[in-house]
Amino acid sequence: MVEHMKGQTMNDSVIHLDHGSGGRLSYQLITRHIVPVFDNPILKQLDDGAVFDIDRIRLAFSTDSFTVDPIFFPGGDIGELAVNGTVNDLAMCGAVPKYLSCGMIIEAGFSMADLNRILDSMRLAAKKADVQIVTGDTKVVPKRAADKVFINTSGVGLVPPGVEIGGHLARVGDKVILSGPIADHGITILINREKMDFESAVKSDTAPLNHMVYAMIQQGGGVHVLRDPTRGGLATALNEIALQSQVGIGIYEANIPVNTETSSICELLGFDPLYMANEGKLIACVAPDHADSVLEVIQKHAFGIDASIIGEVVADHPGRVFMKTRIGGTRIVDMLTGEPFPRIC
Amino acid sequence: MVEHMKGQTMNDSVIHLDHGSGGRLSYQLITRHIVPVFDNPILKQLDDGAVFDIDRIRLAFSTDSFTVDPIFFPGGDIGELAVNGTVNDLAMCGAVPKYLSCGMIIEAGFSMADLNRILDSMRLAAKKADVQIVTGDTKVVPKRAADKVFINTSGVGLVPPGVEIGGHLARVGDKVILSGPIADHGITILINREKMDFESAVKSDTAPLNHMVYAMIQQGGGVHVLRDPTRGGLATALNEIALQSQVGIGIYEANIPVNTETSSICELLGFDPLYMANEGKLIACVAPDHADSVLEVIQKHAFGIDASIIGEVVADHPGRVFMKTRIGGTRIVDMLTGEPFPRIC
Repeated sequence: MVEHMKGQTMNDSVIHLDHGSGGRLSYQLITRHIVPVFDNPILKQLDDGAVFDIDRIRLAFSTDSFTVDPIFFPGGDIGELAVNGTVNDLAMCGAVPKYLSCGMIIEAGFSMADLNRILDSMRLAAKKADVQIVTGDTKVVPKRAADKVFINTSGVGLVPPGVEIGGHLARVGDKVILSGPIADHGITILINREKMDFESAVKSDTAPLNHMVYAMIQQGGGVHVLRDPTRGGLATALNEIALQSQVGIGIYEANIPVNTETSSICELLGFDPLYMANEGKLIACVAPDHADSVLEVIQKHAFGIDASIIGEVVADHPGRVFMKTRIGGTRIVDMLTGEPFPRIC
Repeated sequence: MVEHMKGQTMNDSVIHLDHGSGGRLSYQLITRHIVPVFDNPILKQLDDGAVFDIDRIRLAFSTDSFTVDPIFFPGGDIGELAVNGTVNDLAMCGAVPKYLSCGMIIEAGFSMADLNRILDSMRLAAKKADVQIVTGDTKVVPKRAADKVFINTSGVGLVPPGVEIGGHLARVGDKVILSGPIADHGITILINREKMDFESAVKSDTAPLNHMVYAMIQQGGGVHVLRDPTRGGLATALNEIALQSQVGIGIYEANIPVNTETSSICELLGFDPLYMANEGKLIACVAPDHADSVLEVIQKHAFGIDASIIGEVVADHPGRVFMKTRIGGTRIVDMLTGEPFPRIC
């Protein structure tokens, strides 16, 4: 029995939805069941993508499967998400994304018009991110063997010489930058899936972050860690970095931007925005002497206007994240435990 | 309405199982709906993987999603298939496969023991093929939103200098080599899925072909086309080559190896082995002056003992495949039309 569900027990002989949450149980599945089996130093980095040298060229390689439900939602659709997701995973390795693959699993009976709409959305997203979709695969499974359509994208990018970015490279003293308001994607999916009776203008923040990342890197160094806080939200992504780098991370609640409407919906439904998924935001750990100039670069970019420094990397409490609350207290911010709702991306 | 189902009509506003067969309807979906949207010269090659230059290095990149049912079968399982499938797609580009990704979509409630068994099988397959699984992604969907587990693997390989292999490069006069008996994988999946009451020793031929391909290329040139005849079988793969290269391909039925038991089961069930899936076989179009030495290299390899020259590339009937039958006639061999059964890989 796994111990993470306070007071509850869980059958640990089967896979639970929570294993796909991006939170603690996902982390355990990956670090205990998967990484030890495929045992190699690249996979062990546990970054958003793999970085390796191939014949003197430094490449990044990443994969992501998208099972989001609903497939069309305010601000985007599964196709746009699939392109931006892999573009961003490559960018989080400091790479310039170049080539994407597209593997689709389609349920028999799926609408051809919807498929065309998704493909067109992928085309447009690829154009915006300046990547090419160069190879693909299409499988069709019988009705009820899959739900509508799942899309895997994998991608290859080029890591510029001298760039060294990874979740294990946060240093004490680094400033933690967040590129904008959190929780919009998660809330959008939730209220549209459940067809809740909200009058809401909240929409997904899905966006390609590679151009912004390129500018951040070109600015002149000091960027140690990049991560996009998707499944599991900001809290989980910061915990991963704290664990990988064996540092503490302190954040200030007052500095974390959340759009007013998103914040209200979270409050109403009892969700903590720190754990809600994002699809167009990044966290950067940046050397203190570069933090202001990197922040400036981010803020100049359309997807980073509301960026701010939300905290710093410290020596205390290695592996933990803690937050100064608005009312002046300090609390530990753990990884997501317990799937709030599945199929967010 | 699409015209391919003789005498039948099909609703062309939705996706049919047949769109995933690897046959004619798959080809139409890809060439009419997908390739024009993502319009780029690499994707247009319609090969098993994409080949491109990145900073003066020639890379191959490929993706494949595996939805096979049952997930465990004589001769292999979905994990081994997923590794070998992408290894082979890269090898068919003439590349040396290096790095693989693993994207899993798991149905909630799936057995952890089965997952571990699949992961271990992937580990072993990666070891045999000499590739590393360096990045991954795991999604869990609710019960009945997927059937057990789907695995996407994508891969990156290095194309050695001077190697130029592609489906469009078949030349008139080329000999067509087949590396061994066909239809074993398809028949294995069929009789195990349907739990047919056969006493059968037929098992999947899943195997990594990269080491054999490397030896074929090192032998000294002349290899113009490589393709593994998976979904859609030998007949469909030959048709794809004929279309891509705008040549005719003539084959001799008597030269095409089929294991006796597989042949009997095909006859009994009314399936044509030419259209049954393979997972460890390849077709090569080789310049006539290199054909014998390439054949010899293949036959020396464990996965190519029963290889033979099954035909040749001709100028007549460009885009078509025709076969001299055992009884002396000649017939057109078309692409697969009509899905015999889905989820074969």
